[in-house]
Amino acid sequence: MVKANENYLKLPGNYLFSTIGKKVRDFQDKNPEVKVIRLGIGDVTQPIAPAIIKALHSAVDEMGSAETFKGYAPDLGYSFLREKISEVDFKGRGCDISPDEIFVSDGAKCDCSNIQEIFSLDNKVAVCDPVYPVYVDSNVMAGRTGIYDEIAQSYKDVVYMPCTADNGFVPEFPDETPDLIYLCFPNNPTGAVIKKDQLQAWVDYANKNKAIILYDAAYEAYISEGDVPHSIYECEGSKTCAIEFRSFSKTAGFTGLRLGFTVIPKELEAGGVKLWDLWARRHGTKYNGAPYIVQKAGEAVYSEEGRAQIKTQIAYYMENARYIYDGLKSAGYEVSGGVNAPYIWLHTPDNMTSWEFFDHLLTKANVVGTPGSGFGPHGEHYFRLTAFGSRENTLEAIERIKKL
Amino acid sequence: MVKANENYLKLPGNYLFSTIGKKVRDFQDKNPEVKVIRLGIGDVTQPIAPAIIKALHSAVDEMGSAETFKGYAPDLGYSFLREKISEVDFKGRGCDISPDEIFVSDGAKCDCSNIQEIFSLDNKVAVCDPVYPVYVDSNVMAGRTGIYDEIAQSYKDVVYMPCTADNGFVPEFPDETPDLIYLCFPNNPTGAVIKKDQLQAWVDYANKNKAIILYDAAYEAYISEGDVPHSIYECEGSKTCAIEFRSFSKTAGFTGLRLGFTVIPKELEAGGVKLWDLWARRHGTKYNGAPYIVQKAGEAVYSEEGRAQIKTQIAYYMENARYIYDGLKSAGYEVSGGVNAPYIWLHTPDNMTSWEFFDHLLTKANVVGTPGSGFGPHGEHYFRLTAFGSRENTLEAIERIKKL
Repeated sequence: MVKANENYLKLPGNYLFSTIGKKVRDFQDKNPEVKVIRLGIGDVTQPIAPAIIKALHSAVDEMGSAETFKGYAPDLGYSFLREKISEVDFKGRGCDISPDEIFVSDGAKCDCSNIQEIFSLDNKVAVCDPVYPVYVDSNVMAGRTGIYDEIAQSYKDVVYMPCTADNGFVPEFPDETPDLIYLCFPNNPTGAVIKKDQLQAWVDYANKNKAIILYDAAYEAYISEGDVPHSIYECEGSKTCAIEFRSFSKTAGFTGLRLGFTVIPKELEAGGVKLWDLWARRHGTKYNGAPYIVQKAGEAVYSEEGRAQIKTQIAYYMENARYIYDGLKSAGYEVSGGVNAPYIWLHTPDNMTSWEFFDHLLTKANVVGTPGSGFGPHGEHYFRLTAFGSRENTLEAIERIKKL
Repeated sequence: MVKANENYLKLPGNYLFSTIGKKVRDFQDKNPEVKVIRLGIGDVTQPIAPAIIKALHSAVDEMGSAETFKGYAPDLGYSFLREKISEVDFKGRGCDISPDEIFVSDGAKCDCSNIQEIFSLDNKVAVCDPVYPVYVDSNVMAGRTGIYDEIAQSYKDVVYMPCTADNGFVPEFPDETPDLIYLCFPNNPTGAVIKKDQLQAWVDYANKNKAIILYDAAYEAYISEGDVPHSIYECEGSKTCAIEFRSFSKTAGFTGLRLGFTVIPKELEAGGVKLWDLWARRHGTKYNGAPYIVQKAGEAVYSEEGRAQIKTQIAYYMENARYIYDGLKSAGYEVSGGVNAPYIWLHTPDNMTSWEFFDHLLTKANVVGTPGSGFGPHGEHYFRLTAFGSRENTLEAIERIKKL
């Protein structure tokens, strides 16, 4: 008799974003005349840059002609894209990552959730708290987390590393030694960054303990300060202990185009097994490549024109971030993030819980954000706002919050 | 200490298509003047149809303007596409499949390999022999197959169902009752089809044994005969025992655009657990949707213009199939397939093994095909040719083979 994967049943039934969606719909139904401003979900609003649109049109034309039509893509992705990535994102920053160590995919979310498949089910997973839920949920589905403790709001066999105002939202080494360590910097949801020496300490820790760091650098393009690493491969020894995930979603507005990549150094091993080989095998068996036209769009991101245009786009969002940060600060809120990341992390006032503040903001200011507790127990009493709205909406939202 | 997923190490090191690639490269290096014709891999060669190209351009323009820009897609896919699929592919054939039971994805290969994740690792898997390797390999990686027996060329815990000339390449019920049954019709690699009453018998068998049929209908558009089901949902009782996979790759030349979908009926359960819920959860956690522009391209496949154009394309490939079938037959080969499928399955002459015939064809006729033994032990002494080449190359290949 067929049986379902019972690990799925360990996942709590209520999803953060569906609960938010329902609350917003209910409010809007009751107050149809109110203009609700959404600074909750991390989706971009600016259109794809002209240089990228041009590349897309040109690639579409190629697909329409027998002479230039492209079928299945090469397993790792087209080399025209992997070469640009290697050159600009890595060699340009002094990181020795070759095109062959880059696996093009349809986004960092998929890669971050799929990567655990190449590791043993016995491995112990460590995550930051608060955390992007995908890291944990994908391990729950695989059966690596144990049961969920409703009261502690955590899984029995997962190592949680609190990220609080006290440690600048950068985790300390946990008491129990993990095998797989998920780190995301610039961080979602807190907007915090890790300094080079702090990341180097994590790399040394991983090498010493024969652990692997799964480094999510999806927000790398938002870094504005000098001593913040863009890649974990800026750290010495990282090629024997780290896998890095990158995304075009926030860098170039590709949330609806779907493109990302994962870096696995050739020398990276787990128990003597080359992880490059395993991921290549997985990529070839359980995936079939990002569309040619989207990979051509990715290439255009690295053109001179494309780079200038996405720089303007990121500056636009980061100006939103500054308006939010400064506005909240001047209104007396305790705020962090927003300098090297498109997320602003605020402490709820008057000891409100995250969800109480969500309701307060929705009903009184008609602004939607994301309750910090949805990202883990240490997110309680925090709240995330995103800089991805339009300028007009962002400014209006801040004015409304200031008037509360 | 971190450990790799050791199940990957059970996979034999030599991959079918990489071995073929190497042999062809070696031959071409030694014989640079020879024109090698490739009828091996199942990739299409005709360009994307004009109606679809038009839709792609229009969708690209939408992405370039703030008013029409699209970010993250809805979890199940855009309803404009799911509604067309439900209407044309299912309701149009008397199958009661609603848009809510359709999950849009980046292709049937991904879905076919990912689907096993929502089932228990204890489930017993049955596959046809020969078989599309992805079904087996994805289960190997998950740890559901036991070790590989080099001599038997099979995994210890997998139920293999021989598909031979004697049974018309349609499997019989196995001795051991499986929990998950992979069926692919029209079949890759044999090009065989299953008749409605035969498929109904499998549906009844699955319901009786509380098994699930994982039905890969990626080649459905190539069916030309009347009594061959296009969907498993044409069978009574299938909604309580079957998941179906569909692809735009072969239907409309989307191998380089990436689009497919999976159907999970709302009432389908495994041990009391709704499989729709599990797949929705997986889709939301480990996937992030097909690109908007590609979903718009998919919609155009269902337009009047699009349907007429892809019909012409399929007719072109199927005329290739007829040339191959008739040509080989007239040359005295034992041939099957090629009538409702773009694959021709031929018995090797003179008791040659599949690889001996591969070498023979490559060196004597300079034609590349796929050795049947690469699809499983019962593929030995068989050979696959595909109808996806250009007309010119196909005709030339047949002339060369006839002269052997």
